[in-house]
Amino acid sequence: MIKIAVDCFGGDHSPLAQVDGSLAALEQFPDLSVILAGDEALIREALADKTYDESRLEILHAPEVVTCNEKPTDAIRLKKESSMMKSIRLLREDDTVAGIVSTGSTGALVAAATLRLGRLRNVIRPAFCPILPTMNGGIVGVCDSGANVDITPDYLQQYAVMGSLYLENVYGVKNPRVALLNIGTEAEKGDDLRKKAYELLSQTPGINFVGNMESRDLLSGKFDLVVCDGFSGNVLLKSTEGALLEMLGKLKRDIKSKLINKIGALFLYKMFADEKKFMDYQNYGGSVLLGTAKVVVKGHGSSKATAVTKCIEQAYRMELNSLTGKTEEALDAIFGAQETEE
Amino acid sequence: MIKIAVDCFGGDHSPLAQVDGSLAALEQFPDLSVILAGDEALIREALADKTYDESRLEILHAPEVVTCNEKPTDAIRLKKESSMMKSIRLLREDDTVAGIVSTGSTGALVAAATLRLGRLRNVIRPAFCPILPTMNGGIVGVCDSGANVDITPDYLQQYAVMGSLYLENVYGVKNPRVALLNIGTEAEKGDDLRKKAYELLSQTPGINFVGNMESRDLLSGKFDLVVCDGFSGNVLLKSTEGALLEMLGKLKRDIKSKLINKIGALFLYKMFADEKKFMDYQNYGGSVLLGTAKVVVKGHGSSKATAVTKCIEQAYRMELNSLTGKTEEALDAIFGAQETEE
Repeated sequence: MIKIAVDCFGGDHSPLAQVDGSLAALEQFPDLSVILAGDEALIREALADKTYDESRLEILHAPEVVTCNEKPTDAIRLKKESSMMKSIRLLREDDTVAGIVSTGSTGALVAAATLRLGRLRNVIRPAFCPILPTMNGGIVGVCDSGANVDITPDYLQQYAVMGSLYLENVYGVKNPRVALLNIGTEAEKGDDLRKKAYELLSQTPGINFVGNMESRDLLSGKFDLVVCDGFSGNVLLKSTEGALLEMLGKLKRDIKSKLINKIGALFLYKMFADEKKFMDYQNYGGSVLLGTAKVVVKGHGSSKATAVTKCIEQAYRMELNSLTGKTEEALDAIFGAQETEE
Repeated sequence: MIKIAVDCFGGDHSPLAQVDGSLAALEQFPDLSVILAGDEALIREALADKTYDESRLEILHAPEVVTCNEKPTDAIRLKKESSMMKSIRLLREDDTVAGIVSTGSTGALVAAATLRLGRLRNVIRPAFCPILPTMNGGIVGVCDSGANVDITPDYLQQYAVMGSLYLENVYGVKNPRVALLNIGTEAEKGDDLRKKAYELLSQTPGINFVGNMESRDLLSGKFDLVVCDGFSGNVLLKSTEGALLEMLGKLKRDIKSKLINKIGALFLYKMFADEKKFMDYQNYGGSVLLGTAKVVVKGHGSSKATAVTKCIEQAYRMELNSLTGKTEEALDAIFGAQETEE
């Protein structure tokens, strides 16, 4: 049995999206069990009239909620009775609970996971790895440090190792093609960080480093994993997403502006619906945190039930395929198995 | 009369695109004259059978060509007889020549312009400012340092001043809304560079700083000018362009995949043609270099005649509206009018 804690509060559609998403995940995976964390009365209300396997669902009562406006350190210190912090505490204390899915404050979740669950041996800093659809029907992961972090080449090396294992074990990508985000494809391109990272990645055993990637090729399907610093990762993801959404919006307005366009769009109704679905980030789950001692999946604050189910599936598959254990082994092979100092 | 040197070689469609583009610009602006730089025989061949005002066209014979594979410093040192270097030398020696349009090697052009023409007083480093179309029919400029440059907050401050004057004087944008590219909109977001730049921009007289911009809002039409470092500027522009092109490619494939889609697309033929034209960067001219003592416009290597005409128009309008003089004045007002040391 794989047991996942679901933080039912702190999202835009809490707790209904979390509860419904959890029930769908229970249907999908017979050896999954979930712990719904949050205000028990509200969770019971959301569960009312629904049928599910009661033996695989528990409730962890937590009356407080961490909001996005709180400082992460304040959330940890002052919101001990929140659904997020009680879930993390449970993960820390109970070996049978594999991981957490949360759609709450990113900063608080990262801080609590890093400080309370701890990092895997050798991990300098846990990294996020959101997944995007590529234009040829595949996926690409972007592994970065999250915002506000000054990184050195060895961070990027670790992201390459951790992200590769994630793609292999959760998405079945064989020998993932790893690229370094850079301003050009040639080996000598970029600043000092990029040049040194290129060299280090070229020498890292166990990964399939294929060189630099320019940001315009993110959705091309030529790469499975891109590693980068948090600032440019943020720019990369948000400008890609923004351009696609702005374009769809423009197409919509242009279609509405002329009768002949409206007629054409009737024929293309199904196609446009498919494009929209294809670009809906709800369908690609959450951004996992790699390098923490237990499984952590951060869903988007706007996640609906489908997205929550996807997040739970990610956490489930990470645990099913022993991702944390394999990650620690792979890092040991590179950096040695001595315990690092905190 | 405004005289512009056009480097006719080093582009993908040289010299025909440059020659035809120049002739179209001469038609458009009666007080423009052009100097076509490059192999005279080849330029004469491209000019054969064409009608134009011969009194406003000169040829500067230059037998060599700077290629993109050459190191910029080598190009300056070894390619003295190239169309690019001879144009720059002419600009340096002849006060009546206002600027240069080149579709050749970016690195060589920046190096030659900076070293041979010199920077305006107070300019730490010249900046590029490409222009993109926004989804509501306007434009947005992105002013950055170009790749490989470590910047400090005062660079970004200068970009804001120079870019604002460029948008006002060349595109008629009144009181341009200037934004700082960042990972979030709140003032305290980002790393040390962004926080300090935010503060500095807030205190800079003569600009209309409206705060941080997330990359997803680049095409929204809410901003006229975005300032950023060269690395994230590269990621911003290329991921925006890449996402749009990948999306158009996918739409095309999806339309071809089904008969009903093909029928719908017949009705939408004009609309799709318009979208394609709208996104064709050929229609938005080149990336100007701001902060050099004379006007410098860098067209894309793949520029065709239309794009070259646009580049010449940019150079023409920069000179017509005395952009370099106004830029120097604005920087003097902030930093003082003493000559800076080289």
